[in-house]
Amino acid sequence: MESRGLFITVEGVEGVGKSTNMRFLEEQLRDRGINLVVTREPGGTALGEDIREVLLRPRPEPVAASAELLLMFAARAQHINQVIEPALAAGCWVLCDRFTDATYAYQGGGRQLPVEMIRDLERLVQGDLRPDYTLLLDAPVDVGLSRAGDRGELDRFEQEQLGFFERVRATYLQLAKEGGGRYHIIDAACPLTEVQQQLEEVCHELATCWGVRLR
Amino acid sequence: MESRGLFITVEGVEGVGKSTNMRFLEEQLRDRGINLVVTREPGGTALGEDIREVLLRPRPEPVAASAELLLMFAARAQHINQVIEPALAAGCWVLCDRFTDATYAYQGGGRQLPVEMIRDLERLVQGDLRPDYTLLLDAPVDVGLSRAGDRGELDRFEQEQLGFFERVRATYLQLAKEGGGRYHIIDAACPLTEVQQQLEEVCHELATCWGVRLR
Repeated sequence: MESRGLFITVEGVEGVGKSTNMRFLEEQLRDRGINLVVTREPGGTALGEDIREVLLRPRPEPVAASAELLLMFAARAQHINQVIEPALAAGCWVLCDRFTDATYAYQGGGRQLPVEMIRDLERLVQGDLRPDYTLLLDAPVDVGLSRAGDRGELDRFEQEQLGFFERVRATYLQLAKEGGGRYHIIDAACPLTEVQQQLEEVCHELATCWGVRLR
Repeated sequence: MESRGLFITVEGVEGVGKSTNMRFLEEQLRDRGINLVVTREPGGTALGEDIREVLLRPRPEPVAASAELLLMFAARAQHINQVIEPALAAGCWVLCDRFTDATYAYQGGGRQLPVEMIRDLERLVQGDLRPDYTLLLDAPVDVGLSRAGDRGELDRFEQEQLGFFERVRATYLQLAKEGGGRYHIIDAACPLTEVQQQLEEVCHELATCWGVRLR
């Protein structure tokens, strides 16, 4: 029987370098011989990518925060069912660009929805499934936003104001503070080579400590 | 101050004549001077119609029943927030083609999801909001399906098998049996003129009894 795979998530506000560092992490883990599924939220399945499009498209009418929250968990339910659980059960590691911490940060912190509502949905959709390890790429919000702004047209979230992202960042940091051992904060404001040196150490540690989970 | 409007829903399995009879009901209520908003689920808002499209489109991959359920409630949250609550609060009546009874029938009965899951989401999304009056158009499933089949290409629900629709119908009838006074079952298997005679009586009764709610 296969050992269960490791479930790693990468979190952070717009512009902290998630995409670049996701590619770096993927390369580092594959180089260590890890059987890896790389995916993202919202998305990761055909249905989930359709939901992502519905969520991110700028709209003239306001979107109810509860509708946004339920769409996030709808995409997540499909993602867990079709991708994450089957991969972990088969012994693959899963590297996921954002997961439920992002829901606490964006819909809880950003949109100020009650945390109990998110917790209820988390229980309903995920049962006991939680990430084993979470990398939080952290940088001051203005650094991130100016990087994100350079990318061109803004989606419905990127169009939010500074205060929104300040609340998102503060919630991420709070989660990491209260969440115990699974969080690892990376200072994403420092030069990329230094960020990636930190990430390389993390990958080395993960592959060493969790190597017993490998086939 | 306006009196609150009346919230009327119309339910039924594919092919029981919901569209034709929705138009008839709308006409009957408007003729009685009722200020009416006519809408549908899933849908009723720009976001909701996008979600409807995501839900109904036939897909090669299986859709997790929980994802389907959450999409229904996401569309509903937006619908309540943007359309139903503002209309009722302004004293308009709302005539809605399907609502949460359909979720109990299709995702509960049809997909066999636990009823507690639906009840939790109903509470989370709707608070105390429930329809005041529900018309259930009921007919044997084979009658309905042969009518629906004549309409051409089938959506993801219409592609289900007979047993699915039998469970949907049975759940609707059970809801009406247990749900107390708000349900009114219409025998939709009889000729259209007879169905519409029954609907006319219902409209007369509603306008008479609830006329105090009118402006």
